[in-house]
Amino acid sequence: MTIAARLADLGITLPRPAAPVASYVPVVVHGGVAYVSGQIAFHDGHVIKGRLGENVTLEDGIAAARACGLMILAQLEAAGLLEQVERVVKLGAFVNSTADFTDHPKIANGASDLMEQVFGGAGQHARAAVGVAALPLGAAVEVDAIVALKSA
Amino acid sequence: MTIAARLADLGITLPRPAAPVASYVPVVVHGGVAYVSGQIAFHDGHVIKGRLGENVTLEDGIAAARACGLMILAQLEAAGLLEQVERVVKLGAFVNSTADFTDHPKIANGASDLMEQVFGGAGQHARAAVGVAALPLGAAVEVDAIVALKSA
Amino acid sequence: MTIAARLADLGITLPRPAAPVASYVPVVVHGGVAYVSGQIAFHDGHVIKGRLGENVTLEDGIAAARACGLMILAQLEAAGLLEQVERVVKLGAFVNSTADFTDHPKIANGASDLMEQVFGGAGQHARAAVGVAALPLGAAVEVDAIVALKSA
Repeated sequence: MTIAARLADLGITLPRPAAPVASYVPVVVHGGVAYVSGQIAFHDGHVIKGRLGENVTLEDGIAAARACGLMILAQLEAAGLLEQVERVVKLGAFVNSTADFTDHPKIANGASDLMEQVFGGAGQHARAAVGVAALPLGAAVEVDAIVALKSA
Repeated sequence: MTIAARLADLGITLPRPAAPVASYVPVVVHGGVAYVSGQIAFHDGHVIKGRLGENVTLEDGIAAARACGLMILAQLEAAGLLEQVERVVKLGAFVNSTADFTDHPKIANGASDLMEQVFGGAGQHARAAVGVAALPLGAAVEVDAIVALKSA
Repeated sequence: MTIAARLADLGITLPRPAAPVASYVPVVVHGGVAYVSGQIAFHDGHVIKGRLGENVTLEDGIAAARACGLMILAQLEAAGLLEQVERVVKLGAFVNSTADFTDHPKIANGASDLMEQVFGGAGQHARAAVGVAALPLGAAVEVDAIVALKSA
């Protein structure tokens, strides 16, 4: 079963891949590993802004992290790599949060659960989730990824 | 000399590896490299909480970083990889800190010095240490790792 | 054309590589990939301190990120790897910023643009840029790097 078919089964439509907001590229492949740039959350083309613990609910934060995950998949698809995924190796989840917020793991699960839904066991990854002071464009969540590819 | 013997010599007992607090796995191996998820500090099964510059002393912060390092070793052991370590390649140290705290390197040394004690030259790693706004469960320190493994 | 010649053409003199401020090494090579430790910005041997959104202008922040990039190049040169660069794979940019600062991508471009100037297409990298609460020694910016090397 292709990943495209799996996404269709799950009722997931990938967003249009966002152009980098600066001088870098969305994905670099080296040695069979794709390094995906940090993706912020978009909803209908607008950045999902805000700060956990202040003006973003847990539920909306989880949705934002899932949106970051969808953008990672969209970037892989745009690079022609989506069907080549052997393993999601590592996600880095950066949560825009107040100093007293402590539920970063729940937020990051929005992206993590998506990977497992889409790739099954190959979507099980290592992860680091931290709370940051601020994110590009005021985004609520940013997630980057290291993804192993099947040999061509 | 095995790493287990080296740990015994150093009088180090590894903690029980903490279960991921969310939807990810502690270690993923790809291409001879182990990616270890961000580990927060535990002492006797309790998270070492707090913020450097506010309510955690330098000494306690260093101990927390060392505890993160011990948890990284415990995760490698649980994955059957502890004796397979060829090189600790990179540590990422995230220190829960106030805006005016500047001693992140000293804190991160708690984990870095442990790696060198346990692995000698193979424990010398690259590192990034930063101060973050907040960490999962209110932890004082989180450390993740990239570890090269000996070919089987 | 060597990278040394390219740097000369660009009128760039690399800084003296900073010694790690703690128990780690500036560069670790494994599997043809160089992991460069997080480098903070120096100007004439002094740390470029401050916080974006508070007491560092956009222009000075960009210069600080470029200085981090120069230090990454200086570390590669000191390790004898500067002419071996096949691809700058990934930069991690940590910007010391207030909670309401949102121009992290512009700041990080200081390092990203440098890589493209020096390495051309091989300098095009994946990137994650985030705003952090504090940085070692009060630095305004810290950047780490993953760099692919030509096979010897």
